[in-house]
Amino acid sequence: MRMYDIIKKKRDGGKLTEEEIRWFGKGYVSGQIPDYQAAALCMAIFYKGMDVEETTALTLAIRDSGDILRLDVGGIRVDKHSTGGVGDKTSLAVAPIAAACGIKVAKISGRGLGHTGGTVDKLEAIEGYRTDLSTEEFADTVRKVGVSIIGQSGDFAPLDKKLYALRDVTACVDSMPLIASSIMGKKLAANDDCIVLDVKTGSGAFMHSLEDAKELAQVMAGVGRLAGKKVTAVVTDMDRPLGRAVGNSLEVAEAVDMLKGGSPEDFRELCYVLSSHMLHLAGKGSLEECRALAEEAVSSGRALKTLAEMVKAQGGDPAWIYDTDLFPKAKHSLKVLSPKDGFISRVDTEKYGEVSLILGAGRSTMEDKIDMTAGFILQKKTGDAVRKGDAIAELYTTEKPEMLEKAAEMMLSATEFASSAPKARPLVFDILM
Amino acid sequence: MRMYDIIKKKRDGGKLTEEEIRWFGKGYVSGQIPDYQAAALCMAIFYKGMDVEETTALTLAIRDSGDILRLDVGGIRVDKHSTGGVGDKTSLAVAPIAAACGIKVAKISGRGLGHTGGTVDKLEAIEGYRTDLSTEEFADTVRKVGVSIIGQSGDFAPLDKKLYALRDVTACVDSMPLIASSIMGKKLAANDDCIVLDVKTGSGAFMHSLEDAKELAQVMAGVGRLAGKKVTAVVTDMDRPLGRAVGNSLEVAEAVDMLKGGSPEDFRELCYVLSSHMLHLAGKGSLEECRALAEEAVSSGRALKTLAEMVKAQGGDPAWIYDTDLFPKAKHSLKVLSPKDGFISRVDTEKYGEVSLILGAGRSTMEDKIDMTAGFILQKKTGDAVRKGDAIAELYTTEKPEMLEKAAEMMLSATEFASSAPKARPLVFDILM
Repeated sequence: MRMYDIIKKKRDGGKLTEEEIRWFGKGYVSGQIPDYQAAALCMAIFYKGMDVEETTALTLAIRDSGDILRLDVGGIRVDKHSTGGVGDKTSLAVAPIAAACGIKVAKISGRGLGHTGGTVDKLEAIEGYRTDLSTEEFADTVRKVGVSIIGQSGDFAPLDKKLYALRDVTACVDSMPLIASSIMGKKLAANDDCIVLDVKTGSGAFMHSLEDAKELAQVMAGVGRLAGKKVTAVVTDMDRPLGRAVGNSLEVAEAVDMLKGGSPEDFRELCYVLSSHMLHLAGKGSLEECRALAEEAVSSGRALKTLAEMVKAQGGDPAWIYDTDLFPKAKHSLKVLSPKDGFISRVDTEKYGEVSLILGAGRSTMEDKIDMTAGFILQKKTGDAVRKGDAIAELYTTEKPEMLEKAAEMMLSATEFASSAPKARPLVFDILM
Repeated sequence: MRMYDIIKKKRDGGKLTEEEIRWFGKGYVSGQIPDYQAAALCMAIFYKGMDVEETTALTLAIRDSGDILRLDVGGIRVDKHSTGGVGDKTSLAVAPIAAACGIKVAKISGRGLGHTGGTVDKLEAIEGYRTDLSTEEFADTVRKVGVSIIGQSGDFAPLDKKLYALRDVTACVDSMPLIASSIMGKKLAANDDCIVLDVKTGSGAFMHSLEDAKELAQVMAGVGRLAGKKVTAVVTDMDRPLGRAVGNSLEVAEAVDMLKGGSPEDFRELCYVLSSHMLHLAGKGSLEECRALAEEAVSSGRALKTLAEMVKAQGGDPAWIYDTDLFPKAKHSLKVLSPKDGFISRVDTEKYGEVSLILGAGRSTMEDKIDMTAGFILQKKTGDAVRKGDAIAELYTTEKPEMLEKAAEMMLSATEFASSAPKARPLVFDILM
């Protein structure tokens, strides 16, 4: 087999065989196939695509390129994965809800770059919380508490690491089959029995258009099923931030609020949608029954207790969960005021994400340190009526007070006003089950 | 400027600026831009193309990446460049004809890989012929004789060398703007005043379809003119070998035959077409006048004498030009016999080229040594009537007698027979002047 022939075949719109894709994956990860040939192939895939069988083959090649997590946790393992968005702290609420209902959530979360940290960064806002458990500690926590969330350890999906780094510098990121295989390859290496995928769409999502989001959901669900997993994919809104809190400790507090029965309605509803699908996939009953289970886990306080137990098991102080006022507060804040009367008609959610980034809530490079207190709380969201001088949001930072003014300007420039309320957007666009 | 943005712009069908293309060229040749980003860009160009301005910018970046030949030869310098084909020995006849008519031909020719050697390899069939003149000797020969043909020295177009090597292993060779800029970048570094381009089309040409050949001719002529050169592009037939001789010393002998007023008609005619366009571009009169000049240079024997003088000036024995029987003969030969009565209706010219390659006339790798005696002489060509048992060709080799049988089989399998004569193809399809 020659890499040249594989590139040429894809270049001319041909369908690659599983054997060719596996051969490429092995050769690339071992260094026998050079970056420049992989880059040419990625660009050809960008233009010519891959069908679900090719995408599955690449996904399996990614999965099999490194370790596969095999955990004995004494029950069905279910994961929830989001394609990411601004204010998306659902894992922090959904995982304990699902665990409180008797399924096992052994979640390995990335750190990554972006407007806020990843799920593990958020959890590290809790003093002492360890994200670096050994595999034994990890399994043990899941067995006892029902849920554990840790950072990546082990050598999972090295082919994806290499491919993603390459795509990132060759403008080959925005390719549906490459995105799908990258996400699903890592998910399959994590080796859960069931996966609920939350594919975001809108101005704060990787997939801006609903059509693209639906396609990605379909491809990922198809690949997951071909690989033998139970998969439900939900396409949800990310045309505005989810909930009101953006920033690491602010988001933990909002997730805790949800588990106490509070929190903004969009965030709460999405948590119930996702957790009921997790329970349903795991065989806990009809969707309605699963929804009732999830709601009961919250109203009874068991889900909150489960989160507190996880925090305790991983070295954090559970008191911070019961009383989120224990989180350190930002030293500096600034209110962003509406310049006019009317309605917020649209926001550029990605730009909102940048606001939290420049306040210190996220990383531009992996070396950056996160300011756990930084971010913002929205007082007004898309569709809300505002009066001139009303606070739209309050910005927070400890490390970068000099950025507050700029951040406020950035937020205003990413906010559109109109004299009438915009058409409402649904929270959930599509469910593939 | 960031390479990422340049790749993305082209990926999405944008037009690159001259500044961006020059920046890429400099960065790539210096090693600051890695191969994988260049590969992604080449593949994007493969799909999205480049317009004539972008192609010109890349051509100039290639030209300016290394030395530019500046020769004082005491007259207008005209070159002829062919995109290559089987049996194409026109340079050997056309250059002395043009020089005998008073224009200067300072030709730097490649060796390259292929079914036979390049023009300089063919000349090296003449014992003692030096292709490695210094720039001073080169200019001196052109000044005195009117023509000199040498191998590449100096550091011409290193950007093209790097890009071509990359395209070759990433399936990015077949891209019109990349082909055009590669050829024209080198031509512009050779820095002739006028250039006649012979773009081949057919089964033995790089451009199989006439449409592609015409497009390439147009793009190359456009680029050359935008770069300030006088350019004529001629699209000619390569659906059968040119002339009857294929192989290094065999081709020199056929070119000499042309200069003596003989040689097969297609080859002779093409030599007159190309040399009259060279003379015309150099201002030697109308096309008809230039044709008459060229014919007179041959009939008077001046063109032959010019070739002999060039050979002498470069260390070869001019007697070999006046008597080509002095060339060493192949030790082994085999006649290829027609298996049936009828007409040769079509030949796969590229496969014919491979016949000469396996007999030892060409190189598969740059380390291969060429057998100057190897190749074949065609007795029958497309359109000719044959009888069963007639010799279609005679194959020659000194080094690889064991390949004769296989070569004969290969030639027969590349030859189609029919009961009636095929439709005649023109020799010249198009002239862009």
